[in-house]
Amino acid sequence: MATLKVPSSIPSPDEDAAQLRKAFAGWGTNEDLIIEILAHRNAAQRKLIRDAYGAGYGEDLLKDLDAELSSDFQRAVLLFTLEPAERDAYLVNEATKRLTASNVVIMEIACSRSSSDLFKVRQTYHARYKKSLEEDVAYHTSGDIRKLLVSLVTAFRYEGDEVNMTLARSEAKILHDKISEKSYCDEELIRILSTRSKAQINATLNHYNDHFGNAINKDLKTDPNDEFLTLLRAAIKCLTYPEKYFQKVLRMGINKLGTDEWALTRVVTTRAEVDMQRIAEEYQKRNSIPLGKAIAKDTSGDYEKMLLALIGQV
Amino acid sequence: MATLKVPSSIPSPDEDAAQLRKAFAGWGTNEDLIIEILAHRNAAQRKLIRDAYGAGYGEDLLKDLDAELSSDFQRAVLLFTLEPAERDAYLVNEATKRLTASNVVIMEIACSRSSSDLFKVRQTYHARYKKSLEEDVAYHTSGDIRKLLVSLVTAFRYEGDEVNMTLARSEAKILHDKISEKSYCDEELIRILSTRSKAQINATLNHYNDHFGNAINKDLKTDPNDEFLTLLRAAIKCLTYPEKYFQKVLRMGINKLGTDEWALTRVVTTRAEVDMQRIAEEYQKRNSIPLGKAIAKDTSGDYEKMLLALIGQV
Repeated sequence: MATLKVPSSIPSPDEDAAQLRKAFAGWGTNEDLIIEILAHRNAAQRKLIRDAYGAGYGEDLLKDLDAELSSDFQRAVLLFTLEPAERDAYLVNEATKRLTASNVVIMEIACSRSSSDLFKVRQTYHARYKKSLEEDVAYHTSGDIRKLLVSLVTAFRYEGDEVNMTLARSEAKILHDKISEKSYCDEELIRILSTRSKAQINATLNHYNDHFGNAINKDLKTDPNDEFLTLLRAAIKCLTYPEKYFQKVLRMGINKLGTDEWALTRVVTTRAEVDMQRIAEEYQKRNSIPLGKAIAKDTSGDYEKMLLALIGQV
Repeated sequence: MATLKVPSSIPSPDEDAAQLRKAFAGWGTNEDLIIEILAHRNAAQRKLIRDAYGAGYGEDLLKDLDAELSSDFQRAVLLFTLEPAERDAYLVNEATKRLTASNVVIMEIACSRSSSDLFKVRQTYHARYKKSLEEDVAYHTSGDIRKLLVSLVTAFRYEGDEVNMTLARSEAKILHDKISEKSYCDEELIRILSTRSKAQINATLNHYNDHFGNAINKDLKTDPNDEFLTLLRAAIKCLTYPEKYFQKVLRMGINKLGTDEWALTRVVTTRAEVDMQRIAEEYQKRNSIPLGKAIAKDTSGDYEKMLLALIGQV
């Protein structure tokens, strides 16, 4: 469930655009007004506001936000204002650049979005970057990590609930055999994790756990510093328990010496309209502190206000 | 250009459905009437006829065609009657079955369809087989062939004309280096051929040819019996010169001792509405005999009539 709160009655897109224009005008910027509007409209409504702003003032709302705001608050507002597919395309593109490279971000988008949403990201990527998403991911990675990531981003998984238990048993055994041989990047392992439906993978991993005595991620923790294994475990978690995966990203981001604002902003802006409610529940269960409190402790100013608004605390 | 001929004025879908119903009725089947209708309607029109048939007679037109017809004629009519994405999904599924396995068919559909058409095939595959296309392809192949085919079927290539010449030069060199080392299934080679746009691959291979003295496919012909290399050369041809690729499939199918009807039927039914005109031109250029004549020499009866109708000879 989403945490985004949209008032039951909202102004027209033209009125919202005019208010935003006013928030930018003169000396200083009215950040509260920006939050009041943009952090309380859904994706379709934000799109209409952008269109109205462009039509009314001949400027791109995103460019004006970029010019008026700064730092973490700016990034949170910009990312949230984008449409989901646009935002994901932007995040993947950024994650393939040398200075902002992040295999985790690429994996996260590939594994946590629905098949059709992931495909929309690939379509948007064509339009925006005049390239395919997979060519950038493949070009900027190599070796085992490339094999895993390219397979994950190009997947179009079946999304039905049907599960083939015979297959689950035989593929759990394949996984166990490969892991026992330490063939962590075996093509069979990649095939199973990157082509099977999430329901099927879940059945396979349940069988793995029941039959071989350990959760697969425990067996994959032979070397906690291995980059590929860390990514593989995260992918498995993200495919099977996305809310737990996201709570962990938040936990690591918040507990870090000097908060990881990029992770925090990414999870809050991408999940506020999807499953942030469940993520917050998992967070509180695991950390014994409400997510809002944890965020308030670790952030400040307009950035704090924006995040709290998105997780439904304002 | 297509070869399919649709009369300027056609009966309504209900009338066509009624005629087909009549063609099946009584003792014997009126094959000429079936050809007259189904081989002279475009995909959208055939779909309406199927819908009208289902609504009017409570039966599936395809099932009735299956029951009434036989052998190569049956296969040609059934394949052509299907919608393009449905037909491709059917062909790929068939190609992943043990008895009808064909890596060439999988490659051909992945490489010759537009990005959005290939994606429609993947969507249709979900709906029809309750699985993803890539999971069946990956499950039924292995080793180098799997690496190549899974990358090709999951691609969503950018389709713009933009070409990056710096990249073309550097990637031509990568290809040449790998081929010189006989690393034919190197991950870089697969990456380039499976993620770059067709325009970009073309530029890269032109540079390869200019700079290293041979067309890439000549350098890939070190062992004419190697299954992977044969498939790789076919993929490169299919990506860069689809009409030449298809003329070659026809040529091999027709020249074979005892015609390869499956290849013939596949190419004619899948290309009649797309680029059959160009394929026929390439065929005549390469074989010094018009395609229609070659088909007439090698086939007979209703099957011959159906194919000739689809290539615009009737």
